[in-house]
Amino acid sequence: MSLVVLGTVALDHVKTPSGSKKDMLGGSAAHFAMSARLFTDVHMVAVVGKDFPSKHLNFLRSKGIDLSSVKISNGKTFRWRGEYKKDDLNTAVTLATQLGVLQTYAPELKERQKNISNIFLANFDPDLQLQLFKYLKTPRLIGLDSMNLWITHKQKSLRRLMKMVHLFVANDGEARALTGENNLIMAAKRLRAMGPRMIVIKKGEQGVLFYSDQVMFSFPAYPVEKVVDPTGAGDTFAGGLMGYLSKAGKLDDKTLRKALLYATTVASFNVQGFGMARTASLSLREVEERMKVLVKFFALT
Amino acid sequence: MSLVVLGTVALDHVKTPSGSKKDMLGGSAAHFAMSARLFTDVHMVAVVGKDFPSKHLNFLRSKGIDLSSVKISNGKTFRWRGEYKKDDLNTAVTLATQLGVLQTYAPELKERQKNISNIFLANFDPDLQLQLFKYLKTPRLIGLDSMNLWITHKQKSLRRLMKMVHLFVANDGEARALTGENNLIMAAKRLRAMGPRMIVIKKGEQGVLFYSDQVMFSFPAYPVEKVVDPTGAGDTFAGGLMGYLSKAGKLDDKTLRKALLYATTVASFNVQGFGMARTASLSLREVEERMKVLVKFFALT
Repeated sequence: MSLVVLGTVALDHVKTPSGSKKDMLGGSAAHFAMSARLFTDVHMVAVVGKDFPSKHLNFLRSKGIDLSSVKISNGKTFRWRGEYKKDDLNTAVTLATQLGVLQTYAPELKERQKNISNIFLANFDPDLQLQLFKYLKTPRLIGLDSMNLWITHKQKSLRRLMKMVHLFVANDGEARALTGENNLIMAAKRLRAMGPRMIVIKKGEQGVLFYSDQVMFSFPAYPVEKVVDPTGAGDTFAGGLMGYLSKAGKLDDKTLRKALLYATTVASFNVQGFGMARTASLSLREVEERMKVLVKFFALT
Repeated sequence: MSLVVLGTVALDHVKTPSGSKKDMLGGSAAHFAMSARLFTDVHMVAVVGKDFPSKHLNFLRSKGIDLSSVKISNGKTFRWRGEYKKDDLNTAVTLATQLGVLQTYAPELKERQKNISNIFLANFDPDLQLQLFKYLKTPRLIGLDSMNLWITHKQKSLRRLMKMVHLFVANDGEARALTGENNLIMAAKRLRAMGPRMIVIKKGEQGVLFYSDQVMFSFPAYPVEKVVDPTGAGDTFAGGLMGYLSKAGKLDDKTLRKALLYATTVASFNVQGFGMARTASLSLREVEERMKVLVKFFALT
């Protein structure tokens, strides 16, 4: 089953202890799609400016990503500049953002995309995320991601959204900020009470926690020795999760556990290169090879 | 096979968001022994003062712990007073320590204990830990724990010790402090290079990482919703680990994984009550019941 993702497409300028890269293809929708395309057809809903390099669009298209709902607007593409410090590679320090065309964007879906039943609202302004609902005819699985910026400045819209989605993805810091709970199990329960049936808490190099009324489980992350650039790891994770769930077409315990294994494995590739350096060339076979190593990593025997 | 533990026996005064308790039996050797006794005979090597309540000694004896190398010296028992804040239940803030009889203590072993081949050097002054070696006739497995205080003030002695032991246990903060590596996989490799064949990094509620030249694995922790008092969790963990390894009498991959599962499970009980409130009454059967739940928590299906 196909999958729609709404989110940002950006030009990223990132500095990490491994170096610095400018004008990289980035953004929540782009990282998500680069991961989800390994599992299913992905339809991207986003906006870029006239300055957006056509090589990036061609590249996304070459990966099989449907760009018919990617709008090219008058103005500048969204740009993000950030840095990760040696002592905390999990936390991005935002140095500059240039919203550009994001400021006037209203997401739209093509008629033939309105029946797609798997939807992911990647990190984006919650008010824009809310706008997508009017196009959805037969949603089966709606996933939502957010970030601290929106938890702080648009919590009301975010809380409204949470009542409308089935799956909520947050990192540990976001889960704590949104619930006021330091203990992640308690935080997951609070998030569940805010609406979504399924809660996924990403803990970076510490792995992932899944919580629903029926089941709770946790996996460690694949052991990456050298994190080059964590930008987009959360989106890549969500892409693997939603991509596999869309492909599987079911949401039982076993399917969910497998989806989270895929998610954490794909994310481990993302952090090993700048931007999409590692995920752009990734095949499902490579992901599954690494997944076998991950499974042995926490096996009992 | 029997097990010797050298460490502290203390009177603890602990404040946590759940309350405050005074004059509790504590210390690294005591918490370790309370856990390891579930698996094998434990011989405690420690010192207390004349003021130490005989009820605590009787209690330890009633749990089958051999106290023949626990010295009762003139002077005061070691006392520790600490607090855990709501926003970081993993980190103890030391408010006061009263070394008392620790200041003049020299550990000794009874003749019949010198042939015991499993030894754990629980958190203690490294110079005192070093003194135990002269008594050991046939060591098979020597484990070592330490803390930030010794990493800062007695790193030379600690590094010397690390060359003499087989297994080193550290929490994530200690592993980072000792190696200067933020990435825990890299930190584990550095620790391995300092001497010990087996490295165990405890990550609190995030679980555990094991590293050796042959194998690396990780388990999540048992999901505890309410941490009452984490004092002694690391010692309880080490007690489960060394206790099971002593009982099993082997160190293959499967045995190590099982030992770490026991360790993390026993530790999860420790944090659910003040001091030894939960571990004192614990049975191996209860531990194994919870271990089944933990195994399902990170199972693939």
